[in-house]
Amino acid sequence: MAGGDAPTRIRLLEAAVEVMAESGWSAVTSRAVAERARANNALVHYYFGSVDALRRAAVMHAVEKELEGPVEALLRAEDVLDGVADAVRGLIERGPGTAQQRVVVEALMQGLRDEELRGEGVRQIRTFRDLLAARLAENRAAGLLRADADPAALAVVLTALMDGLLLHVLIDPDTDAAGATDRLLALLRPTGPQDAGEQTPDE
Amino acid sequence: MAGGDAPTRIRLLEAAVEVMAESGWSAVTSRAVAERARANNALVHYYFGSVDALRRAAVMHAVEKELEGPVEALLRAEDVLDGVADAVRGLIERGPGTAQQRVVVEALMQGLRDEELRGEGVRQIRTFRDLLAARLAENRAAGLLRADADPAALAVVLTALMDGLLLHVLIDPDTDAAGATDRLLALLRPTGPQDAGEQTPDE
Repeated sequence: MAGGDAPTRIRLLEAAVEVMAESGWSAVTSRAVAERARANNALVHYYFGSVDALRRAAVMHAVEKELEGPVEALLRAEDVLDGVADAVRGLIERGPGTAQQRVVVEALMQGLRDEELRGEGVRQIRTFRDLLAARLAENRAAGLLRADADPAALAVVLTALMDGLLLHVLIDPDTDAAGATDRLLALLRPTGPQDAGEQTPDE
Repeated sequence: MAGGDAPTRIRLLEAAVEVMAESGWSAVTSRAVAERARANNALVHYYFGSVDALRRAAVMHAVEKELEGPVEALLRAEDVLDGVADAVRGLIERGPGTAQQRVVVEALMQGLRDEELRGEGVRQIRTFRDLLAARLAENRAAGLLRADADPAALAVVLTALMDGLLLHVLIDPDTDAAGATDRLLALLRPTGPQDAGEQTPDE
């Protein structure tokens, strides 16, 4: 995985993600990462300055790559509830979890102890929520979401649900995350014309 | 915290929870825990056999204590959706997270790498889901939940939502977890008599 024609900095990040997925945050040392990436030890310090900076860069690299799929699913879907369903399906399609997913969970965990990472986590969570809330508001106006659903509140719970389901699928791969999400989302759709957004622009 | 009149084994567990909350899984050593609990180092091995066994026992201790509140809220509430709302309120009431909550997240994380812990995690998640599904089915029959809501599916998503919200509140304490949950749960209630469970026992 870590190798090929990618720039050295990216190869080091991917190697750090692999080491962290296997053995955790503290197992990421410049030696372990340089060995995995077949790069010179000194390059770690050249690119990242410190081992902690490398660890943070590695978890943010994993978070950004992991979020690409869900974010694109949300932006692309005409019906954002379908986009959420696709994002959940994307999480679990990869089987019992990828190295990158394990590192995302590690990022969430380390974020509880590391103020700089926590700041990044807050930024990522809020950006995702805001994007989702804006798309939900559009969909409600178009009658694709119940008129009594609150876009901002729904964005908070659906964002948390996605992280919670990722965690539960990694622990219990038999979790029917996609089926359960579909059943929940079905309850958020207008049940009849009287319930469609356009007829009741009360917010 | 770790001290008082509790039995030594419990004092060691509580000390391990504190050390793990502050500095993570690998910071829990028999020396660090014995010092914190003001107990003899050898007692760690007497009670737990190994440091890894102590770490696992500590995270399970935290998980069990953390689940007490939500489980009791679900068992006690006549309306189980109110019980879920109370459980979420309980999660966030404690401010920016307790040592125990941090260790619960650590348990979820370590469970991705430790088969024994993962087994415990699967057991806990499934027990909680089953309890919730049974109560949701009762409530649907009593007309407190929409007839088209599937209790088993809803139990999967609400259990994941609670863990996801715990994580998000610990990272971003400004998350309006309680308000957002209330808005979601309101959408799961019957909207009229035609929608109440008793009239449509179709499952």
